[in-house]
Amino acid sequence: MTTKSLAITGAESLLRTLAKAGVDVCFANPGTTEMHLVHAVDAVPEMRSVLCLFEGICAGAADGFGRMTHRPATTLVHLGAGLGNGIANLHNARRARTPIINLVGNHASYHLQYDAPLTSDIETLARNFSCWYKSDSTPETLAGDGANAVTAALKATPDSKGQIATLIVSTDAAWGEVTSVAVPNPVPCRPVVTSGAVDKAVQSLDADSLLIIDGPGMSQSGHVAAARIFSPARVDAGAGYSCIKRIPYFPEQIQHVMSKVKKLVLAGAVPPVSFFAYPHAPSYLVPDGCEVVTLARVEEDVVGALVAVADALNAPADCAQKNSQRQHKVASGKLSAASAAAIIANRVPEGCIIAADSGSGSIAFDTVQTALPNTWLSLTGGAIGQGGPTAIGAAIACPDRPVLSLQGDGGAMYTNQAFWTQAREGLNVTTVIYSNREYWILDFEYLRLGLPALSRQGLSLFSLDKPPIDWVELAHSMGVPGCRAGTAEEFDSALSKSFTEPGPFLIEAQVPSPKREDLARLIPKRQR
Amino acid sequence: MTTKSLAITGAESLLRTLAKAGVDVCFANPGTTEMHLVHAVDAVPEMRSVLCLFEGICAGAADGFGRMTHRPATTLVHLGAGLGNGIANLHNARRARTPIINLVGNHASYHLQYDAPLTSDIETLARNFSCWYKSDSTPETLAGDGANAVTAALKATPDSKGQIATLIVSTDAAWGEVTSVAVPNPVPCRPVVTSGAVDKAVQSLDADSLLIIDGPGMSQSGHVAAARIFSPARVDAGAGYSCIKRIPYFPEQIQHVMSKVKKLVLAGAVPPVSFFAYPHAPSYLVPDGCEVVTLARVEEDVVGALVAVADALNAPADCAQKNSQRQHKVASGKLSAASAAAIIANRVPEGCIIAADSGSGSIAFDTVQTALPNTWLSLTGGAIGQGGPTAIGAAIACPDRPVLSLQGDGGAMYTNQAFWTQAREGLNVTTVIYSNREYWILDFEYLRLGLPALSRQGLSLFSLDKPPIDWVELAHSMGVPGCRAGTAEEFDSALSKSFTEPGPFLIEAQVPSPKREDLARLIPKRQR
Repeated sequence: MTTKSLAITGAESLLRTLAKAGVDVCFANPGTTEMHLVHAVDAVPEMRSVLCLFEGICAGAADGFGRMTHRPATTLVHLGAGLGNGIANLHNARRARTPIINLVGNHASYHLQYDAPLTSDIETLARNFSCWYKSDSTPETLAGDGANAVTAALKATPDSKGQIATLIVSTDAAWGEVTSVAVPNPVPCRPVVTSGAVDKAVQSLDADSLLIIDGPGMSQSGHVAAARIFSPARVDAGAGYSCIKRIPYFPEQIQHVMSKVKKLVLAGAVPPVSFFAYPHAPSYLVPDGCEVVTLARVEEDVVGALVAVADALNAPADCAQKNSQRQHKVASGKLSAASAAAIIANRVPEGCIIAADSGSGSIAFDTVQTALPNTWLSLTGGAIGQGGPTAIGAAIACPDRPVLSLQGDGGAMYTNQAFWTQAREGLNVTTVIYSNREYWILDFEYLRLGLPALSRQGLSLFSLDKPPIDWVELAHSMGVPGCRAGTAEEFDSALSKSFTEPGPFLIEAQVPSPKREDLARLIPKRQR
Repeated sequence: MTTKSLAITGAESLLRTLAKAGVDVCFANPGTTEMHLVHAVDAVPEMRSVLCLFEGICAGAADGFGRMTHRPATTLVHLGAGLGNGIANLHNARRARTPIINLVGNHASYHLQYDAPLTSDIETLARNFSCWYKSDSTPETLAGDGANAVTAALKATPDSKGQIATLIVSTDAAWGEVTSVAVPNPVPCRPVVTSGAVDKAVQSLDADSLLIIDGPGMSQSGHVAAARIFSPARVDAGAGYSCIKRIPYFPEQIQHVMSKVKKLVLAGAVPPVSFFAYPHAPSYLVPDGCEVVTLARVEEDVVGALVAVADALNAPADCAQKNSQRQHKVASGKLSAASAAAIIANRVPEGCIIAADSGSGSIAFDTVQTALPNTWLSLTGGAIGQGGPTAIGAAIACPDRPVLSLQGDGGAMYTNQAFWTQAREGLNVTTVIYSNREYWILDFEYLRLGLPALSRQGLSLFSLDKPPIDWVELAHSMGVPGCRAGTAEEFDSALSKSFTEPGPFLIEAQVPSPKREDLARLIPKRQR
């Protein structure tokens, strides 16, 4: 054996290092600058590659995978244009604090000076959502840079920084030859909170207090405390789990929840703020005079802090109020978001992962609290188009668990390419599209703002009705079978069937938008 | 009439100012932070709004519109996530130097400090592709900022800066009340080149020289000189137009073209470089010893400079070698990219606009040089997924001209949502999808690099075959009728029919990938 034969490319040294660090799934949409990385993915048998036909799918799938496993998957995308296509779902993943490693192929370092057509400033894009990025690797540093990317993705950071590491790999770094791989770094630990913080929280928790948990506190062990949480990345719930309530969406609703709170205790969470600003409502929703007590910041050992509080309170090991499973009553006849939510709660199999986008499906969150044990993946960053891609990642992370993806028709259009990868990989994903043929939330937000009535041209900006999108046909065009459900009976039958059959399935749920009169309490008084 | 009744929102003062400056089309995908802008678009009757179901469609449509009219359209998108979804096509538009104004709704300025879920650093995204951006408008400055955005979009900039202006509008700037609009700024002029530059070009143009034209030189008046050009944003061509040849794609091909050139004269163009770097080929493709003479930079008066050169050469007013229309011979039977290109040349109606993405359709560029007069919109920045969206913008810019969109199946998947807007607006767009069910260019680029053969898993990253995408069904699900064409006869019949009927139409052209042996001359020798 000659020395020559020991040589591998920089790309292969990187992929071998990632695999040694336990990174073994690559959601890929490669281009010409990624050919040596494609070879490397292929040459490392531990690495599973999953082709996605749009980078938003790669990014969302890596998010779903990371939320379920707490391990980073990689994306593999093509220069700035490819990374750009992933930004919306990377934004959600940053907010979810999901560990992800983006591998972005770039031109050869010496080629950048010529400003060839696909050249762009990839670092400014990466900076937008990454806690760590690097673009000047050489063949010799690439393996070590990969090990550092893994560390960056696994290290908890202060809120809003996220855990996305972006390694921009120039082709000359990828194709250069090296003879070694890197040793993975030790896995970073979360700092333990001080006993002072625990004491302060213990003193604060009384009848006038509210405990908000988020981040790692939303794990099974974090559920020792009854909690009210705000937009968690993941909620394990259902029968046998502690009762969990989400902080609601509109500022007036949050104000109502917060109105009598005198002490707010935060465990991995931040004080509640309004999702959007409105001329008639405050942005910061902690009432005047309410004390804010931070038990644990999101980057700290939130679970340990909650356990310490419970111990200090001498709470029995298992005293939490728990959900019990119950059968939800379903109104027969024409399907509504409410009857769909009841049916979902009755039908989700044990262990089901629910990948939710915005839209009418979100009201099922409350009903599945009393369903069989399940995991809910929320729309953390508000960038719609997450439901299909995260379902892919969750299904690949947990092949033995069924996945239910709840999406609005508006959001589902952003990333409809997800159907193709679901079909290709034969994933057990049931997609429910709530097809109300409008951006009803915008129609409603417009009303809430008290703006003058729109003309037909203006109203048409909220309408998806002309032409109607045929979701059954659209999914079928990418290999996913499906059906339409206009009644509760049809929806119940379709959902039950989809959970018993392998592979992906689509249900176009013909659910009308909520009626304005039913939402009247959510319209600020002077706007009614 | 009271003073109160004169008040309008900042958003309306902005839209009224834009309309006064001749900006009258808005490609919109709004969200909650754009509600006052939606009201303003609706309140200004000169402004036409076009709903797109993904921001990549808004961006590409604005690109197509601007290339055809030389006037900016606006996009209307939702915070950083929405702008992010537009980045790939904004990259192409930057390279095309298309005037565009992005209107991005942002949180209220006072709301940003609370880091609500959709908050992100929008400026870093805007900086990536914009020659001008602003995010701190107040209600009072918004109209003037809009006028300045128009000026920025119309002012030619040095190569690679582009002409995209991005105005990030906080909701409090949009909803605040003002009482006036702004006066549009004068339209910027291009600087005239010096007589020295003209003299130098005149001296250089001889049998050993090559003139490369790009940018504004590619207008009808710029066609006074025979030219060879590199990746132009737009080419007006066909019978009666001067003969135009494109610089080819692979570096070896460009080296062949350049091999005997001693003097390179540039009119709005830059010296040719390789699209990608390869270990075996140079990036900069001007031969050693070749003199580079810049007649006019892209931001200068390129047409005037070309006329000045022609005048100095005492060339007659109309001496250019011109194309004549000819009937292309079509091989019957199974359809190929070559027979499709011949049929396209035979069938394109006069004035047809051809919106091309990457893929097999690009070889039709040569055949349509001898078709009826037409306009070709190239993939300027290499970010695939441009074909459908630019077709929308071109059709809205030029309602009396038919549009033909040529796309690969890989690229078309990125922005398939374009079908919906084409159906909604009843646009005369014929889409041809070259369905070879693979990323064949990647398979070929991999081969060119001489890398080891891939396993089945690796090869699957280039394959779109399992499941096959049913394009007829996919287009139909969004309201666009279509058919499949497997033979030259079927393609000819479908194309002819689509040009005679109003509204959009889809042809799934079942064209096999090029055979490796036919491409052998494009594989570097040591890799064969």
